[in-house]
Amino acid sequence: MKKMQKMLVITFCIACVLGMTAFPGWAKEVPPQKPLTTAEVLAEARTEDWRTLDPQNTIYLELNGGRVVIEMAPLFAPRHVANVKALAREKYFDGLAIIRVQDNYVVQWGDPHAEDPAKARKIVNGKPTLPGEFDRPCGDDVPFTPLGDGDVYAPEVGFADGFPAARDKASGRMWLAHCYGMVGAGRGDTADSGGGAEDYVVIGHAPRHLDRNCTLFGRVVQGMEHLSSLPRAGGPMGFIEKPGQFIPIRSIRVAADLLPAERTELEILRTDSETFRRLIEARRSRSEPWFLFHPGRVELCNVPVPVRKKEWGK
Amino acid sequence: MKKMQKMLVITFCIACVLGMTAFPGWAKEVPPQKPLTTAEVLAEARTEDWRTLDPQNTIYLELNGGRVVIEMAPLFAPRHVANVKALAREKYFDGLAIIRVQDNYVVQWGDPHAEDPAKARKIVNGKPTLPGEFDRPCGDDVPFTPLGDGDVYAPEVGFADGFPAARDKASGRMWLAHCYGMVGAGRGDTADSGGGAEDYVVIGHAPRHLDRNCTLFGRVVQGMEHLSSLPRAGGPMGFIEKPGQFIPIRSIRVAADLLPAERTELEILRTDSETFRRLIEARRSRSEPWFLFHPGRVELCNVPVPVRKKEWGK
Repeated sequence: MKKMQKMLVITFCIACVLGMTAFPGWAKEVPPQKPLTTAEVLAEARTEDWRTLDPQNTIYLELNGGRVVIEMAPLFAPRHVANVKALAREKYFDGLAIIRVQDNYVVQWGDPHAEDPAKARKIVNGKPTLPGEFDRPCGDDVPFTPLGDGDVYAPEVGFADGFPAARDKASGRMWLAHCYGMVGAGRGDTADSGGGAEDYVVIGHAPRHLDRNCTLFGRVVQGMEHLSSLPRAGGPMGFIEKPGQFIPIRSIRVAADLLPAERTELEILRTDSETFRRLIEARRSRSEPWFLFHPGRVELCNVPVPVRKKEWGK
Repeated sequence: MKKMQKMLVITFCIACVLGMTAFPGWAKEVPPQKPLTTAEVLAEARTEDWRTLDPQNTIYLELNGGRVVIEMAPLFAPRHVANVKALAREKYFDGLAIIRVQDNYVVQWGDPHAEDPAKARKIVNGKPTLPGEFDRPCGDDVPFTPLGDGDVYAPEVGFADGFPAARDKASGRMWLAHCYGMVGAGRGDTADSGGGAEDYVVIGHAPRHLDRNCTLFGRVVQGMEHLSSLPRAGGPMGFIEKPGQFIPIRSIRVAADLLPAERTELEILRTDSETFRRLIEARRSRSEPWFLFHPGRVELCNVPVPVRKKEWGK
């Protein structure tokens, strides 16, 4: 029954390819040292390689199925992050619903009556729309760890402050990438028609063609299964057509506004740490005996950023 | 509510880049003609651009939730395809179960008691294991439509006989790619330990590191939602640990063995057709007004192969 149980992340330490921005050649590289599994790499992580999820920068989407924990990305979408927090604090989302579940694409929530002024939920302190925050200048304030394995959609990809990201040195711009679990703001046809009142999460193969078309402002760090396993909606583009089938949102809360005992305390591996660099190497070519072919490369959205329960007192 | 409704496939006809095997440059290309939407491209398709799904090459996985239609790939995995058909015809799968649902990875089915000789379902006409069919020689018997947009995992990717595939002209080998919906044979640590009695379907971001590590023998052409929305299992690697939670398989049947009225009649767009080439172009940069940024590229697993109900008498 467990034939594929060994299909896990393993190390095959390859010479560091950090900083390679071109699509690399196809010659095989020789591992210079004994390969480690990702579990072994993580076991060797130092306490300071982990950072605590900041409760001021975390929201909880509470569904009947369970809690979805979302880390936000203020370095990339400061106005959207502030607005989603403002909306959460005025309880704007409470009682609204998941209105779209499109297979291999997105789950989306918002106000089912958003386009009916008579029925639409009123926004008090937040803003209904904002200018798009699709990209931002490259800057020293964002640590960027290049992946170096090439990418179809961007000149360079890597990890920025815990998030999968891309950059273009020629234009001096960087942006977040639509990998599995990334959270963005829905919008209409114009760049300034979103704002965070209607949001989506990627639940399928990375729709990277949405990069620089939408404001991504966070990623799910726990609870993806509460979104990805929802029944697929039958309407066009996965919108739910029967009101009785909307999936209710109990609430969206800023973690800092809950009592400590009610929070989900998590730690994220720092993506600018040596441990994370070794973890990427470990995913390029897995040394576990199950893997018979070793590609020696890994694609951006196939590198999950490790999350664990907070370890107290270490 | 329908803010993101226009997030659809659109054309932005770019000069043909078929045959480009290197990672292309980043200079913007200028569309030489009026862009078409994918719907417009498909509307212009000729009858001969579509092929009927061959019932001798199609299996139905029947779940309580509905039917999953799988087209098989005998050009890539002839022995596995023959064996799965043999197993289906001896009703080997009937009453077995989905035993694994791993988020962002795979759904897997087989015999929950496969490793207990006393309880394991007996295989009569099929074979319990086969040599792996991980890749095959490049050959004139397989039409290959190169994508030309680069790839992280292979020197060249494209479409072969309806399936996402990759090839390496240097070694003269080609293989199927682990995109969303692809169906493969689970195996143990050795290449010859699978065979089709235990199978998996990709339900998340393409795990392309499995390419050339497993035998892919088909893809789901209808009914993915019956697999992708299953509740995620809590055990290690997504294996279901409580027998009561196994998801029963009613049956797996070869379509040709059913009465015509019981079959799901589908047509697949030929991936070596001019229409499919234009469809790829349409996905590179979508001309619909919703899209504000146009990458000009598309990644292999972001190009679905169109499927439609069979049109009779046309």
